[in-house]
Amino acid sequence: MEKREMLYEGKAKQVFLTDDPDLIVIHYKDDATAYNNVKKATIEAKGLLNNQISTIIFKYLIENGIPTHFIEQLNDRDQLCRRVTIFPLEVIVRNVIAGSMAKRLDIPEGTKPSNTIIDICYKKDELGDPLINNDHAVALGIATYEELDEMFELTRRINVLLTDLFKKLGITLVDFKIEFGKTSDGKIVLADEISPDTCRLWDSQTNEKLDKDRFRRDLGKVREAYEEILHRLTK
Amino acid sequence: MEKREMLYEGKAKQVFLTDDPDLIVIHYKDDATAYNNVKKATIEAKGLLNNQISTIIFKYLIENGIPTHFIEQLNDRDQLCRRVTIFPLEVIVRNVIAGSMAKRLDIPEGTKPSNTIIDICYKKDELGDPLINNDHAVALGIATYEELDEMFELTRRINVLLTDLFKKLGITLVDFKIEFGKTSDGKIVLADEISPDTCRLWDSQTNEKLDKDRFRRDLGKVREAYEEILHRLTK
Repeated sequence: MEKREMLYEGKAKQVFLTDDPDLIVIHYKDDATAYNNVKKATIEAKGLLNNQISTIIFKYLIENGIPTHFIEQLNDRDQLCRRVTIFPLEVIVRNVIAGSMAKRLDIPEGTKPSNTIIDICYKKDELGDPLINNDHAVALGIATYEELDEMFELTRRINVLLTDLFKKLGITLVDFKIEFGKTSDGKIVLADEISPDTCRLWDSQTNEKLDKDRFRRDLGKVREAYEEILHRLTK
Repeated sequence: MEKREMLYEGKAKQVFLTDDPDLIVIHYKDDATAYNNVKKATIEAKGLLNNQISTIIFKYLIENGIPTHFIEQLNDRDQLCRRVTIFPLEVIVRNVIAGSMAKRLDIPEGTKPSNTIIDICYKKDELGDPLINNDHAVALGIATYEELDEMFELTRRINVLLTDLFKKLGITLVDFKIEFGKTSDGKIVLADEISPDTCRLWDSQTNEKLDKDRFRRDLGKVREAYEEILHRLTK
């Protein structure tokens, strides 16, 4: 499948049209950004690593009945996917409290809540991707209550599957961000990527961070952390 | 009922113990604050007006089956109420978009959403009363999911009743903030106050603001606006 015109360029990926209106090619870049574009850098080989990691994870989710946009990995940096209309929502699952929630609510990072926490944020850079609730999402025309319910139901299933997958690899799935899209025939599917760019992954024994926080917080060995995740997933 | 020791002093009210452990006296002050205490002033007679306005509204809600903490007005500035443990939550209902939501999501003030919006904010001055969702409230130990559902159910009924009440007075109930508490026997009841300090009230014909926004935004005639609300409620 040939790449045609570039449809969209995001912070870490490019999306290309193909000759089939229902198919796109997603190209993984080495660019990394954090704090709403305030911090930027290139992490050598990140695109290669995330393409492989996300491919393995999407294949695992598909095998376990999760509808996704993923079709196949084309090469080192490219994936063939179904074209979807992305809901402008970041759906965030928190199994352990860290990052923005720890800061916003003054809870020590690493606190394990009694419940699974799902946040939704309105994907809009100019507003800083603010936390919203279901009523806001409906008022903004982002999704209907029924569509939100369907996304939350899928999100809970994905969380159970991913928590289990990473646990077997000696990794705690602290939190992760996913996005959903709607296909041309109206089906809601998991889209975007799942990688150390979009998850917090801590070594279960040492709590060492194996994710983008190494970049955000200048902890060093960013590439090595992503390689370690790929290594454990392919062991 | 005699006032005893002061239990708590808030921005606009004082709460006193009485000889009955289940009863408190709430005293309405003239103090006004906005933007999390950044702006402060005294509005002469505000305490008198809010005591009367809140009394009329609570009596109306009680007549319509809403459980509340209110027992009776004692004098110009004092109310006798049941003592409750307040949930540290601001429950905000938005029928028209204004204030923090308009700003946060870049929606023009005055926009009428297709749905009724309920926000919950964690009452914590140090954190700036942040918007949260149900999962956060449960993780923070503020309330259980069942208690939240009960508060939302009451909130929707209160919104219908208040919207109807104000409509008959030529006033649009734009939004309002309420608080709930739990009595010593475990019942969830409406607490705090309902007044121009806690509601946005616009004249239905002119859209003139008849609420605390006159103070927040330096529009002048603050006391007159509160008097107008009391006047229409007692007509």
